[in-house]
Amino acid sequence: MPHAMQQRKVLRTICPDAKGLIAKITNICYKHQLNIIQNNEFVDHRTGRFFMRTELEGIFNDETLLADLDGALPPGSERELNSAGRQRVVILVTKEAHCLGDLLMKSAFGGLDMEIAAVIGNHETLRNLVERFELPFVLISHENLSRPEHDQAMMAAIDKYAPDYVVLAKYMRVLTPEFVQHYPNQIINIHHSFLPAFIGARPYHQAYERGVKIIGATAHFVNDNLDEGPIIMQDVIHVDHSYTAEEMMRAGRDVEKNVLSRALYRVLAQRVFVYGNRTVIF
Amino acid sequence: MPHAMQQRKVLRTICPDAKGLIAKITNICYKHQLNIIQNNEFVDHRTGRFFMRTELEGIFNDETLLADLDGALPPGSERELNSAGRQRVVILVTKEAHCLGDLLMKSAFGGLDMEIAAVIGNHETLRNLVERFELPFVLISHENLSRPEHDQAMMAAIDKYAPDYVVLAKYMRVLTPEFVQHYPNQIINIHHSFLPAFIGARPYHQAYERGVKIIGATAHFVNDNLDEGPIIMQDVIHVDHSYTAEEMMRAGRDVEKNVLSRALYRVLAQRVFVYGNRTVIF
Amino acid sequence: MPHAMQQRKVLRTICPDAKGLIAKITNICYKHQLNIIQNNEFVDHRTGRFFMRTELEGIFNDETLLADLDGALPPGSERELNSAGRQRVVILVTKEAHCLGDLLMKSAFGGLDMEIAAVIGNHETLRNLVERFELPFVLISHENLSRPEHDQAMMAAIDKYAPDYVVLAKYMRVLTPEFVQHYPNQIINIHHSFLPAFIGARPYHQAYERGVKIIGATAHFVNDNLDEGPIIMQDVIHVDHSYTAEEMMRAGRDVEKNVLSRALYRVLAQRVFVYGNRTVIF
Amino acid sequence: MPHAMQQRKVLRTICPDAKGLIAKITNICYKHQLNIIQNNEFVDHRTGRFFMRTELEGIFNDETLLADLDGALPPGSERELNSAGRQRVVILVTKEAHCLGDLLMKSAFGGLDMEIAAVIGNHETLRNLVERFELPFVLISHENLSRPEHDQAMMAAIDKYAPDYVVLAKYMRVLTPEFVQHYPNQIINIHHSFLPAFIGARPYHQAYERGVKIIGATAHFVNDNLDEGPIIMQDVIHVDHSYTAEEMMRAGRDVEKNVLSRALYRVLAQRVFVYGNRTVIF
Repeated sequence: MPHAMQQRKVLRTICPDAKGLIAKITNICYKHQLNIIQNNEFVDHRTGRFFMRTELEGIFNDETLLADLDGALPPGSERELNSAGRQRVVILVTKEAHCLGDLLMKSAFGGLDMEIAAVIGNHETLRNLVERFELPFVLISHENLSRPEHDQAMMAAIDKYAPDYVVLAKYMRVLTPEFVQHYPNQIINIHHSFLPAFIGARPYHQAYERGVKIIGATAHFVNDNLDEGPIIMQDVIHVDHSYTAEEMMRAGRDVEKNVLSRALYRVLAQRVFVYGNRTVIF
Repeated sequence: MPHAMQQRKVLRTICPDAKGLIAKITNICYKHQLNIIQNNEFVDHRTGRFFMRTELEGIFNDETLLADLDGALPPGSERELNSAGRQRVVILVTKEAHCLGDLLMKSAFGGLDMEIAAVIGNHETLRNLVERFELPFVLISHENLSRPEHDQAMMAAIDKYAPDYVVLAKYMRVLTPEFVQHYPNQIINIHHSFLPAFIGARPYHQAYERGVKIIGATAHFVNDNLDEGPIIMQDVIHVDHSYTAEEMMRAGRDVEKNVLSRALYRVLAQRVFVYGNRTVIF
Repeated sequence: MPHAMQQRKVLRTICPDAKGLIAKITNICYKHQLNIIQNNEFVDHRTGRFFMRTELEGIFNDETLLADLDGALPPGSERELNSAGRQRVVILVTKEAHCLGDLLMKSAFGGLDMEIAAVIGNHETLRNLVERFELPFVLISHENLSRPEHDQAMMAAIDKYAPDYVVLAKYMRVLTPEFVQHYPNQIINIHHSFLPAFIGARPYHQAYERGVKIIGATAHFVNDNLDEGPIIMQDVIHVDHSYTAEEMMRAGRDVEKNVLSRALYRVLAQRVFVYGNRTVIF
Repeated sequence: MPHAMQQRKVLRTICPDAKGLIAKITNICYKHQLNIIQNNEFVDHRTGRFFMRTELEGIFNDETLLADLDGALPPGSERELNSAGRQRVVILVTKEAHCLGDLLMKSAFGGLDMEIAAVIGNHETLRNLVERFELPFVLISHENLSRPEHDQAMMAAIDKYAPDYVVLAKYMRVLTPEFVQHYPNQIINIHHSFLPAFIGARPYHQAYERGVKIIGATAHFVNDNLDEGPIIMQDVIHVDHSYTAEEMMRAGRDVEKNVLSRALYRVLAQRVFVYGNRTVIF
């Protein structure tokens, strides 16, 4: 059998907790002669759910492996087996360049294992930056369109690229439920505040008004609207009385792009599990 | 003239911004032959207010110094001149020991330049700890008292010690407006969340439910109710999916005590200015 | 069978990596009808070592469990099975109170699951503080003793209390190799710098001289001398030009005590594995 | 007098401390009818040096203003008066893109008030990235040149652009003393470790070997060699046992670029004073 058939895949399991689960799953992998490169598991004792991420190397027979697992796992289990490695991403933008720029740089020079299939904007502003990186930029203007019409046009444009994930890199539009439901646990947003503080518009101005001493950013999956959904990553920086709202905004941009990129790094590595309004991150 | 008359004082000025303010104030200090050990100023260009903290050393004639300043400063100015050094503090507690313990240790062994005049609790729980440090513990139980009656009894007990500041070290009672107004800009509270997120009861449980990846604490002056008022200091720690609400609480205790103690350090050094709902901290 | 025989224990395994290890170990636990409360493993692919911590609940037959494991694990494996829960600690001190105070508070009021068997000092300074917490303080003065003689006396005093761990809470003495070897992977020290920067005496003064913008602290196991050994935990705070060496020292004390306490928390929970000059922490 | 003559400038003073300095300097500004937008001062009581940064607005007569100051300041004073605003920068690179990319993005889209006059590299690797941003890239290969010859060629290339600052954005060459002395307090380097830990080559590998739990980056002026000189800014991130040296390197890149950019922000705003091996940063 040629060596080329050696592959690396990630098996992800969520199921009701029970005695012997790790033994059962790892036994099946062992019988399939798959080597476990890395294994992580977590039991949420409050809800009785078991989470396991198993990074495997070997020669895979997906069908029999999954069938064996289905025979062993308790009812109500979910499992998925995906190839490890490079994921496809479509990025949505409006006018701000900093998050997009960081993603373009990391995609081109290393740091994020993704292929940017396209950048789609509702303004022309960032076309030039995207095209400098020799990537397609698609304009879907929201002018003269109702919100549902615009979201339909966006979905059509996105789906052409069949992405694994849709990244909102400062895409400043409220999404329709139809849009959100079309990409379940696939939309990642960066919000420019330390959620749940300062939900809504102009969070830096809200933060300034409240006189906070720390500002932050939050990367999260989008389930319902822009400021809710399971949190993936958060970070903060200290500010003081000398910061105006504009200076908070400037300083905050670095936090935003760092948090988005760190969140995406883990999502792309299939390390993030969503359940309810929470994430488990290995 | 005996050397003993050399003193160190802090002059604090808040006034409408105007050309030449620093020159005027420092000229007056210079004429009084006072040495400026440290000087900080800040102009809030949005509201047009000027803040200056001047740490002075020399032989003071308070009356003429303040009269000279009043002659030079624009209308609507506030200035105060206080001795630098050890301040008097009364600490209010309920049942939790961690913030109190840190203040007791730092008062006894260095780290906070304050005299703890007394600790007053609405439960007996912490009497033993306080008495180990040879400090008075006063019980003012809230049982069988209305909230206003209890707060009156607290005020009476506090005022016996004539403190410069009242520190709420996990004092878990809602305060009456009368109590708060009795100690303007003198009450410092530690709130166990990163305000303004998770205002109200059980913030760690709220944080757990929301699935945040960072928890924090906020030290602030109390103006109205326990969770509002000008923020002095905030800090955070990272948590992950493996933290239960109880483990967040345990980990958060260290943040709470650190933030309270760092805020108090600056307040005691007369480095914190309050204006409106904000603080300027030098 | 009475319910009282239900116990919680921690199984820790270090062995050469091999296919099927997780399956083998968890199978054995499953056959013993032990429930896995929490499981963590890590493979160091560089050295080919496998680490696993398994928190188990059930009715234990230690002898057969360990025999089964020994039959299944590859040659060169180490495994240990300990009761989860409260560990016994002896604390060594010199004159500084801040780390000791934090440990006393957390032992008395919660936060560290340990029994402080005794505090042993080479100065009388901290006797009073220890006795306030109703714990034994033992003075082993180093005066008129050679270093080996003093360390022998220390060891004799420590061993009376048969501790699981010896915590150096700012114990400012260089230890003899005999002392260190007597407590392998059992001595935890807090060093007042961000190791490996500023090894040796007066690290805050070294940091001040170098003009650093960050200072830190390091908790580590002691293998050889005070400033080496596997690092458990590190943290830092930002400083600026206005900090003198003394102010760095004051600000650093909080970092020191936090880092020591966080390191100890994980050590006490049997979450820290040592191998070579490194730690694996689950 | 036309409004267009209103300017903003920064006056920076370093001199021996003396009574009345702030009064003298601000009086002179007041007499010149200059408005103080922001003023900061610091006295290093250990060395007796006084530092003041005064941001002024008004109609300037530089000659008489500086003459008045020279008449008032004590012997041994240094003062400089520069226009606030956009500075000219030349960036040196080798092969790594992350720091350069961040500077290009911030120069083009906001965040750093600088004009990148040119990027000069000793390899061709980054030409394409620079030219995408429509900026000149100059190759000065070190091949077939001695170190002094190469540095001479670099200096000639740099000096054509007459920059205010030379930024080493991962320029991996050791500089000759001639080069360094040619740009006193004008060369800013980013070092990929938390200095003074891990001086020298391959700091991430050193950090990995030592088993540290924190890695960092340091931006500093270059006085002597690449790893010394007054520190401007440092920051760190936490790592754990699961990080290989390569993963530390990847995670460290974000810290490097953030620290460099934050340091540069303050340097460009003329907020950084150098004295001896230290910086004062307002």
